Amino acid sequence: MEPGSTGRVVGPVLVVGAGLLGTSIGLALRRRGVEVLLRDINPQNVTIAGSVGAGVEAGASLPEDLQLVVVAVPPDHLAAEILSTLTTTTAVVTDVGSVKSAPLREVVAAADPAAVGRYVGSHPMAGSERSGPFAASAMLFDGRPWAITPHQAADPDAVALVTDLARVCGASPVRLTPEEHDEAVARTSHLPHLLSALVAGRLLDAPATHLALSGQGVRDVTRVAAGDPALWQQIVAANAEALRSLLEAVRADVDVLLDAVGSGDRDRVGEVLSRGVAGQGAIPGKHGGPAQPTAPVYVAVPDHPGELARLLSDAGEIGVNVEDLRIDHDPGRPVGVVELTVAADRAEFLEEALGKRGWSSHR
Amino acid sequence: MEPGSTGRVVGPVLVVGAGLLGTSIGLALRRRGVEVLLRDINPQNVTIAGSVGAGVEAGASLPEDLQLVVVAVPPDHLAAEILSTLTTTTAVVTDVGSVKSAPLREVVAAADPAAVGRYVGSHPMAGSERSGPFAASAMLFDGRPWAITPHQAADPDAVALVTDLARVCGASPVRLTPEEHDEAVARTSHLPHLLSALVAGRLLDAPATHLALSGQGVRDVTRVAAGDPALWQQIVAANAEALRSLLEAVRADVDVLLDAVGSGDRDRVGEVLSRGVAGQGAIPGKHGGPAQPTAPVYVAVPDHPGELARLLSDAGEIGVNVEDLRIDHDPGRPVGVVELTVAADRAEFLEEALGKRGWSSHR
Repeated sequence: MEPGSTGRVVGPVLVVGAGLLGTSIGLALRRRGVEVLLRDINPQNVTIAGSVGAGVEAGASLPEDLQLVVVAVPPDHLAAEILSTLTTTTAVVTDVGSVKSAPLREVVAAADPAAVGRYVGSHPMAGSERSGPFAASAMLFDGRPWAITPHQAADPDAVALVTDLARVCGASPVRLTPEEHDEAVARTSHLPHLLSALVAGRLLDAPATHLALSGQGVRDVTRVAAGDPALWQQIVAANAEALRSLLEAVRADVDVLLDAVGSGDRDRVGEVLSRGVAGQGAIPGKHGGPAQPTAPVYVAVPDHPGELARLLSDAGEIGVNVEDLRIDHDPGRPVGVVELTVAADRAEFLEEALGKRGWSSHR
Repeated sequence: MEPGSTGRVVGPVLVVGAGLLGTSIGLALRRRGVEVLLRDINPQNVTIAGSVGAGVEAGASLPEDLQLVVVAVPPDHLAAEILSTLTTTTAVVTDVGSVKSAPLREVVAAADPAAVGRYVGSHPMAGSERSGPFAASAMLFDGRPWAITPHQAADPDAVALVTDLARVCGASPVRLTPEEHDEAVARTSHLPHLLSALVAGRLLDAPATHLALSGQGVRDVTRVAAGDPALWQQIVAANAEALRSLLEAVRADVDVLLDAVGSGDRDRVGEVLSRGVAGQGAIPGKHGGPAQPTAPVYVAVPDHPGELARLLSDAGEIGVNVEDLRIDHDPGRPVGVVELTVAADRAEFLEEALGKRGWSSHR
């Protein structure tokens, strides 16, 4: 039986592509003492990844007991690298690409049928606006979902091994078919990215005086639009099928809105808005459980070092756990408004207790 | 000359509509000792607003020296209330509605030409997902932009007085024509809201297993979609003209994307994405200045009271100012990843100093 039969990542592991994800996986595996070999078409990436402790450069010949290959290259190169490592090794092969069906089709079409069972796709829902091995971290995946997307002919031992990889990296494995995965990320990641880019792109036509009215809302909606266009271009191309049907639905939605706004049909505008409220509420809560009722408490905080710490220290002493925190970007003055999100049944207590400690707050 | 000729808000001020905005303005004025009278079609709102210290109920007859009226009612009722107070008082009249041109047209068409110069529209860029007088706060406007939108026949003294109201409430006045304002908020607020609602609405079609892959991006893009549909319906209707041309532009953008995604034209997808990057970068920075280069530092923080405070206390002692802070919602485990945004030239220093204090962090 192969080394993978234990279902545990014991190594050696070959990481192909020492960018943000590959190097972070190397770091997470090294943390557990697993032997990691690194390969990248850019030798500098291997040097950097090695220097931060993510593994050592793979030699020309790989160890015979190589247990796992992690392909962490840009979407355009996934299928070729997966195929190449399936051919040249007897290890289990996974990849961490953002799209699963298109590379799988290429792999199945070209791979030796006896080898294809060793391939199990996966996708950690983690990343950064930064890229490259310098941005890597052993904790990049901590607590994140990590999709495990076996195809029908995948070897169950290989599936177990890739699932263990996700756990060893600190992530929460989520099992989906490749098609389900691509539909899911089209909806929860790729479409939001594209519409965020459209909202942001429309800001370019506006004079600076208009943009002075930008509030927190537009900042939130457009944050992801800052992501690397070269990477997102590949992601969009690789998930074209799922995205097309969503974009068609959005075009129909925009037509409904245009018609409703033009004809003054408020009910139809209201339906679109109410669907939005329901959809926003459908996003799962922190720690994967159902969303718990929370409430905001707003506090005025002077904008210099230590004040935010003092506030949170006070909240900690009061004994209320801060579930989320947002600092409003307030143009024009050196006092920030901090929004603390706490359990709904603790908000009043927190506000009163903060008031006794001299904080100006409201709910 | 009228009392408003000083250009300073000295009162008395009548606030019509004791909801979130009206009550918050009352509180801000009372903080400065200005006499505030309150009126609302719902007497309970006046009682609550009075009990939190936002002013006293207006009697049947208003004081002869009434200086200013602030109309803070839902969009549908703005014009009628503005006209009514222009007729029944000799005070300067402003409103705080989200849309300026449509109510102004109604006011100009129906008002006594000798009175219309006393009306100056305005719009504080502040609010909350909550509403009503209980949610009010004297600090709601602190540091926010407050659009001042005089029409051509507006009395300069009235403009000065409304500008002073914004300052007294702690906001930064931004002067725009009513038409400029409506174009600006269509782009920076109303369109982002509608597209956020479309992204959120599309989540409703997905099974829960798909939504398990939701990351921080979709949470940010859809946050504003939780806003009150009844209020937003009125806002959209009142700004239909500016929104229609933007929605038409978005439909054209969606068509470009559909065509490019369908035909595999990556360059056109890349153009849309690059416009998004540029538009996101055009949003002005904190404190109204140009955006300063910042960088993220990610830190692992156990999810119980006091830990976040300890982190920020350490950051404060290290002497690095935290510009923004985001807590990632990590399904599945009790450790959060906190993203600290700091000046780009301080990020490396902060990361190293946190490491020395035992924090696990990366950039």
